[in-house]
Amino acid sequence: MNQMASWGEWLRIAVEGLATAAFALSGAMEAARKRLDAVGVCVVAFLAAFGGGTLRDLLLDQRPFFWVRHVELLWAVLALCVLAMLFLRDRHFVLTEKAIQWPDALGLGLFAAVGVDQALQHQLPALVAVLMGVITGVFGGVLRDMVCNEIPSAFRDHRPYAVCAFAGGWVYVGLLYLGQPGSLALLACVAVTAGLRGLALWRNWQIPGWRA
Amino acid sequence: MNQMASWGEWLRIAVEGLATAAFALSGAMEAARKRLDAVGVCVVAFLAAFGGGTLRDLLLDQRPFFWVRHVELLWAVLALCVLAMLFLRDRHFVLTEKAIQWPDALGLGLFAAVGVDQALQHQLPALVAVLMGVITGVFGGVLRDMVCNEIPSAFRDHRPYAVCAFAGGWVYVGLLYLGQPGSLALLACVAVTAGLRGLALWRNWQIPGWRA
Amino acid sequence: MNQMASWGEWLRIAVEGLATAAFALSGAMEAARKRLDAVGVCVVAFLAAFGGGTLRDLLLDQRPFFWVRHVELLWAVLALCVLAMLFLRDRHFVLTEKAIQWPDALGLGLFAAVGVDQALQHQLPALVAVLMGVITGVFGGVLRDMVCNEIPSAFRDHRPYAVCAFAGGWVYVGLLYLGQPGSLALLACVAVTAGLRGLALWRNWQIPGWRA
Repeated sequence: MNQMASWGEWLRIAVEGLATAAFALSGAMEAARKRLDAVGVCVVAFLAAFGGGTLRDLLLDQRPFFWVRHVELLWAVLALCVLAMLFLRDRHFVLTEKAIQWPDALGLGLFAAVGVDQALQHQLPALVAVLMGVITGVFGGVLRDMVCNEIPSAFRDHRPYAVCAFAGGWVYVGLLYLGQPGSLALLACVAVTAGLRGLALWRNWQIPGWRA
Repeated sequence: MNQMASWGEWLRIAVEGLATAAFALSGAMEAARKRLDAVGVCVVAFLAAFGGGTLRDLLLDQRPFFWVRHVELLWAVLALCVLAMLFLRDRHFVLTEKAIQWPDALGLGLFAAVGVDQALQHQLPALVAVLMGVITGVFGGVLRDMVCNEIPSAFRDHRPYAVCAFAGGWVYVGLLYLGQPGSLALLACVAVTAGLRGLALWRNWQIPGWRA
Repeated sequence: MNQMASWGEWLRIAVEGLATAAFALSGAMEAARKRLDAVGVCVVAFLAAFGGGTLRDLLLDQRPFFWVRHVELLWAVLALCVLAMLFLRDRHFVLTEKAIQWPDALGLGLFAAVGVDQALQHQLPALVAVLMGVITGVFGGVLRDMVCNEIPSAFRDHRPYAVCAFAGGWVYVGLLYLGQPGSLALLACVAVTAGLRGLALWRNWQIPGWRA
């Protein structure tokens, strides 16, 4: 039993690390496309990787930030940026973007679950908790795009992303409300979010836009 | 007397609801113009409606946010976005923008007064309190424009907007300083702000720009 | 001895005032280039002058903000904006930008040192403290550029700026770690940051970008 919990913990850390790397890489590649310098590449990667969770902590008034408690995350993203600048070239971008879609989807689910969980610990209403989950998962990418002077792709590419985290967040809240244990709710939230995201990419689902 | 206070409270809630709807609609229409998808429309509407007050609460370190205490506001704006996407078309925009100018001006005054009031409760200096009022009234629109990749219209359209809230804020502070009751100061702030805004629109007042 | 401390204090206030004026002027001139109105000029000048320190205080959860404790700074920047709009013309911009390079470099060093110092008082790890110093010195300009709908120049002009503050911050942390007094660490941080910045401008150093 104890061993299972520790396996679960390890799995979570592995998914979190992979997802953070995927988010950071998406930032570094967007910075590269905009021809930013080394400082810009690092800052945009940091924003993409840590922006969502930091905004959540600001809104929930939580200190220290998670990247202060785990300062090794900062060093890892810094190292990733250096490696990316040394070895990743423009011709690798299409492949890299394909490769990070899955860790990105898993990360979206995990970060959403963590956001919902922390909001519920502050006794916030269900809708607010779900929105905190969405913010945790999505606003890293939003800040990344804003600093690169783009309309955030999460708001205009018509591919479900925030919506998957929204659905997953309600699953999390719903299972807790039904008295299920937190670990099951977390797993279900990740599975529903990542599953919906995967389905959406595979079936090319579109969310509606404004009809003129 | 009691009844009058309760009428005042009802009036205030009505104005606040109308103003929030006007702000949210301005966000939804800007998102529509930028061809954002449904997620983008909702996020920009939320930012326009709640961004100013949330930034004020962040700066004053106030928790819970007002939209956590009144979570029905979130549901209302969500419903408004769905309705707008179903029924509002591009050809209605000019008329809608004309129709929301007045609730928008009233809301600017009310939000400015609320911002000044809350800053004064934190014993902040008069200038800071007035700036908090301006931020409450204006920064929802600023965030809306920034996320849509525009220079905020409040900073470049030469039509008095923030300036009206600035003037109204000083009226609020001044009346309190003269020992007048808070409800009078609030009413005067709303009247001066909305009146100046209305005059400015009617007489086509312009604030000066940089002379080259 | 006492007199020396008071001279040091005066020198610090003078540098801080000069640097704040330089930051505010950079904001006013960017707003002017974008043809913003008077409100926009003031807001961008405020963001450039106070944005970095305010973001640091938000992240460290410090209240009151430094511009609440020194509200005269707000009045000074407001006055500076009025004077700039009255007397500064487009043809003065090149000269003004040359003239503010040195107070700007000094300010970068001083603000970085203040940021590191305050982060260390919150017992934050060394890397986080250095990053807080960089944020204090650099993010005023970042917010200035973002609101003006530009990719922040600190991230794309290939001239060392944030990197100088990063180096200066490590000097500060390193000297404290070696048991040196805080005033020496502060002076060294300012000297290294401003010196590196000056050298970079003089020798036209470039930081690398992404190789395609």
